[in-house]
Amino acid sequence: MDERVREHATVLVDWSARIDAGDDVVVSVGPAAHDLGVAVLEVLGERGANPVIINAATELQSAYLDAREREFDEDPAHELALYRNADSVLLLGGGRNTAELADVPGETRQEYRRSRAGIREARMDTDWVSTQHPTRSLAQQAGMSYRAYQDFVYGAVLRDWEALAGEMDRLKDVLDDGSEVRLIKAETDLTMAIEGRTAVNSAASVAYDSHNLPSGEVFTAPYATEGTVLFDVPMTIDGRRVQDVRLTFEDGEVVDWSAAQGEAVVTETVETDAGARRLGELGIGMNRGIDRVTDNILFDEKMGETVHLALGRAYDATLPEGETGNQSAVHVDMITDTSEDARMLVDDEVVQRNGRFRWEDGFEDA
Amino acid sequence: MDERVREHATVLVDWSARIDAGDDVVVSVGPAAHDLGVAVLEVLGERGANPVIINAATELQSAYLDAREREFDEDPAHELALYRNADSVLLLGGGRNTAELADVPGETRQEYRRSRAGIREARMDTDWVSTQHPTRSLAQQAGMSYRAYQDFVYGAVLRDWEALAGEMDRLKDVLDDGSEVRLIKAETDLTMAIEGRTAVNSAASVAYDSHNLPSGEVFTAPYATEGTVLFDVPMTIDGRRVQDVRLTFEDGEVVDWSAAQGEAVVTETVETDAGARRLGELGIGMNRGIDRVTDNILFDEKMGETVHLALGRAYDATLPEGETGNQSAVHVDMITDTSEDARMLVDDEVVQRNGRFRWEDGFEDA
Repeated sequence: MDERVREHATVLVDWSARIDAGDDVVVSVGPAAHDLGVAVLEVLGERGANPVIINAATELQSAYLDAREREFDEDPAHELALYRNADSVLLLGGGRNTAELADVPGETRQEYRRSRAGIREARMDTDWVSTQHPTRSLAQQAGMSYRAYQDFVYGAVLRDWEALAGEMDRLKDVLDDGSEVRLIKAETDLTMAIEGRTAVNSAASVAYDSHNLPSGEVFTAPYATEGTVLFDVPMTIDGRRVQDVRLTFEDGEVVDWSAAQGEAVVTETVETDAGARRLGELGIGMNRGIDRVTDNILFDEKMGETVHLALGRAYDATLPEGETGNQSAVHVDMITDTSEDARMLVDDEVVQRNGRFRWEDGFEDA
Repeated sequence: MDERVREHATVLVDWSARIDAGDDVVVSVGPAAHDLGVAVLEVLGERGANPVIINAATELQSAYLDAREREFDEDPAHELALYRNADSVLLLGGGRNTAELADVPGETRQEYRRSRAGIREARMDTDWVSTQHPTRSLAQQAGMSYRAYQDFVYGAVLRDWEALAGEMDRLKDVLDDGSEVRLIKAETDLTMAIEGRTAVNSAASVAYDSHNLPSGEVFTAPYATEGTVLFDVPMTIDGRRVQDVRLTFEDGEVVDWSAAQGEAVVTETVETDAGARRLGELGIGMNRGIDRVTDNILFDEKMGETVHLALGRAYDATLPEGETGNQSAVHVDMITDTSEDARMLVDDEVVQRNGRFRWEDGFEDA
């Protein structure tokens, strides 16, 4: 086995999920993430944790969803009990075919998600971490050879996370002190309130309220969104290609939308529930180890010199203790490139220009 | 997909597990049983059941067990809660390597089992059914080609179960009326009490208190075992070859044991706990569709003209309501061939001679 698989597992269990002896862990492993699964189970054995291993094969899920004829039951008791009693959840993504869910009607998928709000809540109340094993299917999605893709993934995952956390703290301080963010670029002039919200320094560890490995972004939960935005980084949502999404907001809600490709996905997303019309996240990618778009949201949204916004659910970590943010059954991220002809302002001061932050070399000339 | 995979799934869900709309089901799927998994999830979707899918890859389990250094925690809360809240559990066996657990020390496996007594109880309180997908690994274990092995498995699984249940009722009546079973063959003279026990007509359905697909045996829970027995059907226990096990019982307990091969497995089994020294099951194989030994207990023990005995745990279905039988963390079946030079007596009357039951043609001449 590639020694990097073992290192990935160790970073996941120790740095990201902070798993200790006696912890009750749910590990979700798909068929193509099997090698990472073996390495993670080994580390869990060494740490003295207690795993339940879920089979995350998308083919099994799509067979079920495709065949289901009646309404979905709400929060089945056995699954709810599993997650309510878990300390940590490790999601080892990486399938054999990223388009496997493409034939399941969007409506079915939305209904399924809506029926499982309690399970989702319970899972998000744990120390959950989502990561991905480099698979041939993801290499194909990225338009890369398998070997090059492995190097790309491990380059993004096996980092000095403490050092990156230090860099990201600078932007967090700016956002925590600010009350309004404005984003300006071609076809984009968007204003979002962030007053009273706390930015998350997403350093790929539950200790930082960060639940992705790799991570490397600073995010918060905006509200009162006004204006228009163009997402010019192409992506795949639920196995369907989406390109050049344009959203227009009034009083915090999407009132108009279009897309050069995949508009139906956007429509389904926006129409899922009331919360799906509002933003749940403003994220600023700061991981320059991720140096190319690979059509994979876990990586793309962390890429340096990009900004992403998510329709739907907000993460509670950005809100004052006890308060909950935007509620929705969905959380769909879309990305815009800020490396050229773009400015991000906080309270009317330019914080990032053409991809450079104001504390970085080259900001003045950018 | 082979149409028989889909038929297998339908028999499992409808005849065996009797799953209805709204049932909360745990489906355990290993990597080599994936195709059966897809078919089962499809049927569960049609029936309107709610699945949680467990990853049963033995490589994941052995990586964990191999690495574990400290004691196992008792009945981890999340796994216990999952099974306590499940209506049915479907175990889709069939791995990629039946010897995968061979390197995990027997002591580790026994400790792991002992630590999970509550989870096992909870699982057995559901409508659980264990079946197997025909895999290349199981074909290899059987010494058969993959195509021939598929025919063998589907021949055993896709049967007229109601007709077989009728045949088996005859033996059940004899056992229910009897108080003592005696087995006589080469190196074997064993007496077991069955007074007060109810035999189970194991017709591959929870409606018959039968939890294996295929099935085709009548079993009960004997006690007060006396004498000696030779198990001359070779088998594999936890990935290790076992041949010609000899057990001697006094006052219901094993007092002496040996084996031509794999004696260590027998020793580990017997020494697991107090209940592992007593019999938990006397089973009489009546499925003549299973016409050869394939070194696979799920099939071998159901084979016509064999008898099997299990050390360890008894199934409560054989006992009066509310009573529990022999308790143990193990249930290890061993098989003896009764097709030649063998007699089974119930209360001193011959019920089976050289494989023929007394109501069958050829009994007098056998």
